[in-house]
Amino acid sequence: MRILILGGDGFLGWPTCMNLSGLGHEVMVVDNYLRRDMAGQCDLPTLFPTPSLEDRVGHWKAASGKTIDVRIGDICDYPFLKGVFEEFQPDTVIHYAEQPSAPYSMLGQGEAQKTLVNNLNGTLNVAYAVKETNPDIHIVKLGTMGEYGTPNIDIEEGFIEIEHKGRKDRFLFPRQAGSLYHTTKIQDTDLLYFYVRAWGLRVTDLMQGPVYGLFTDEMQGNDKLFTCFAYDEIFGTVLNRFIVQAVAGVPLTVYGKGGQTRGYLNIKDTLQCVALAADNPVGQGELRVFNQFTEVFSVLQLAEMVRQAGEAMGIAVELRNLPNPRVEAEEHYYNPVHHGLRELGLQPNLLTTEVLVQIMEQVRRYENRIRKDIILPKVTWK
Amino acid sequence: MRILILGGDGFLGWPTCMNLSGLGHEVMVVDNYLRRDMAGQCDLPTLFPTPSLEDRVGHWKAASGKTIDVRIGDICDYPFLKGVFEEFQPDTVIHYAEQPSAPYSMLGQGEAQKTLVNNLNGTLNVAYAVKETNPDIHIVKLGTMGEYGTPNIDIEEGFIEIEHKGRKDRFLFPRQAGSLYHTTKIQDTDLLYFYVRAWGLRVTDLMQGPVYGLFTDEMQGNDKLFTCFAYDEIFGTVLNRFIVQAVAGVPLTVYGKGGQTRGYLNIKDTLQCVALAADNPVGQGELRVFNQFTEVFSVLQLAEMVRQAGEAMGIAVELRNLPNPRVEAEEHYYNPVHHGLRELGLQPNLLTTEVLVQIMEQVRRYENRIRKDIILPKVTWK
Repeated sequence: MRILILGGDGFLGWPTCMNLSGLGHEVMVVDNYLRRDMAGQCDLPTLFPTPSLEDRVGHWKAASGKTIDVRIGDICDYPFLKGVFEEFQPDTVIHYAEQPSAPYSMLGQGEAQKTLVNNLNGTLNVAYAVKETNPDIHIVKLGTMGEYGTPNIDIEEGFIEIEHKGRKDRFLFPRQAGSLYHTTKIQDTDLLYFYVRAWGLRVTDLMQGPVYGLFTDEMQGNDKLFTCFAYDEIFGTVLNRFIVQAVAGVPLTVYGKGGQTRGYLNIKDTLQCVALAADNPVGQGELRVFNQFTEVFSVLQLAEMVRQAGEAMGIAVELRNLPNPRVEAEEHYYNPVHHGLRELGLQPNLLTTEVLVQIMEQVRRYENRIRKDIILPKVTWK
Repeated sequence: MRILILGGDGFLGWPTCMNLSGLGHEVMVVDNYLRRDMAGQCDLPTLFPTPSLEDRVGHWKAASGKTIDVRIGDICDYPFLKGVFEEFQPDTVIHYAEQPSAPYSMLGQGEAQKTLVNNLNGTLNVAYAVKETNPDIHIVKLGTMGEYGTPNIDIEEGFIEIEHKGRKDRFLFPRQAGSLYHTTKIQDTDLLYFYVRAWGLRVTDLMQGPVYGLFTDEMQGNDKLFTCFAYDEIFGTVLNRFIVQAVAGVPLTVYGKGGQTRGYLNIKDTLQCVALAADNPVGQGELRVFNQFTEVFSVLQLAEMVRQAGEAMGIAVELRNLPNPRVEAEEHYYNPVHHGLRELGLQPNLLTTEVLVQIMEQVRRYENRIRKDIILPKVTWK
């Protein structure tokens, strides 16, 4: 299959490129280094040095013998994006090319505007490029479980049948997110769902929970193939942040009561899910939604698990409850359905002390690169 | 009250400026002439000549003795918009400043991008300007009934309580629109609802149906105060188009079967509704939604009413069923609730043969300006 990966330089994008290339697909990757530029502007380095995308595909070629094509450019530039589609003629496009940070999107008007325009204009352009070059292309879009928020009813997989005053209809499951970034993901869904109905596009929306981990099979201890691992308050996801905090010997930063509950998954399972979605395209005029996570934890449960893993390694780990910088419920009902990807064949890599220890040991090798000054939250939602 | 009107040069914006000024409010109006520029690019003149906004406020001053301040600029330019808020210090902002045409938004990638970025970036900037200058300002946002689409259940006023697997919660009523333009209005709602929850903003969302008519009390036969009346396929709303077609002696362009059913209102009632919303601000941290229309008609019913009005004037009116250029249901259930504005005091101006004849007679005075070549639909949704 010919697979175009947009935003393929990111935390998940680059491992996805290697994974799909390794599975024998022809892969082209597009990125404009937005994530790197933003992190640079915010002075937030990743834990490992990350080569340029051009160098990465060279290291991958050396390790695997396989070729990945690279195009550096902005998918908000429609002539550029359409040209990439015309040249590569993909069967599937995987769309990661968004500003991915919730705290960044809450920094101020400029950052909010950048997030809004980048994420929506990019997604619009993907829909148009597919329509104008080959409407049969399967769009696999990374969404987020955060679109649903924390409703007081069970979260279904994308859609819900509503019975009201004796009549029934099927709707997108209601969405109400907790940040501007997450709101742009709701808006992406609005956009793609509209073009699915109007033009008969094929779209899979992967509603992903927070991802943890670092290793994927393709890296095999080859540091040059590592992904960009962030642990700061802006780009780091919660469990990866806790892992680095534990290794660095600083208290784990639990926001508020720590009862915030979400569905999590290992980065290896992200790769499985994306590959399964690509291998099983959806029909014309259909928006298919999968809730992409494997286990549900509260923030406090994660912190406790990291403490236990630390103990196993002889590291004393402290927890520290900070005033919550976000506007969110700290105690709430949470019961999301997640059948679809299991039915397609997902074999979950669950979270264990052993898994945590393995990641923490890897992080410890780079302990001298940890910047303790970027760990505490500075961005508030108000 | 100090009222800032964004997009105050448009079909509804200008009559709103005069109405609120006439009621004794201090009014400042902002526009960047986007609507005029787009219509110029598409070669789609309005039926009456429309003076510039600066000239309009002069004519209004001459007619009423009242002053309206004008600022020409783009609300997507945040420093400009924030400056306007700082200078005028409004109590209420009325936000009409959007690309308003569904067919325009379906013309191609460029027009879609312009619609998306203009409407969302503008709305984001309004939220930020309110937050950063005075979070107490009441935002009155024009939404559209088109956000709801045509679901098979009754449409509630903004929110719905969903009972699911024995648990309950309250959500925004599900939305699924029929054009990219209407989708941007859903996305606006997502955006404002998020900042209402995060920052405690006060927002009233007026989910308006298609507006018909031309006269408002402030115009009083003074042609220089007329609003921009469009009858073309891109900027004209359906009943106004039928009126001009009848006067011009061309068949009424009924798309498809004509069973498309919507809630309509007279332009005079738009003014009442906006004034009522402004007079009754909503509480902090609340999104209040009103369904803004007075009567429900199918396209075919409207066409028949115009035919009857034509008969009363001695004009023979023909109906012509055209292949539907849009993707929409032509036969569907439609039962939207609309209590809120009635409870605030709305006195509806209902649609009668007499009302139609009055509008048609006014249009007939400008019969020689009707351009028959811009009446037939050319934009398709595919």
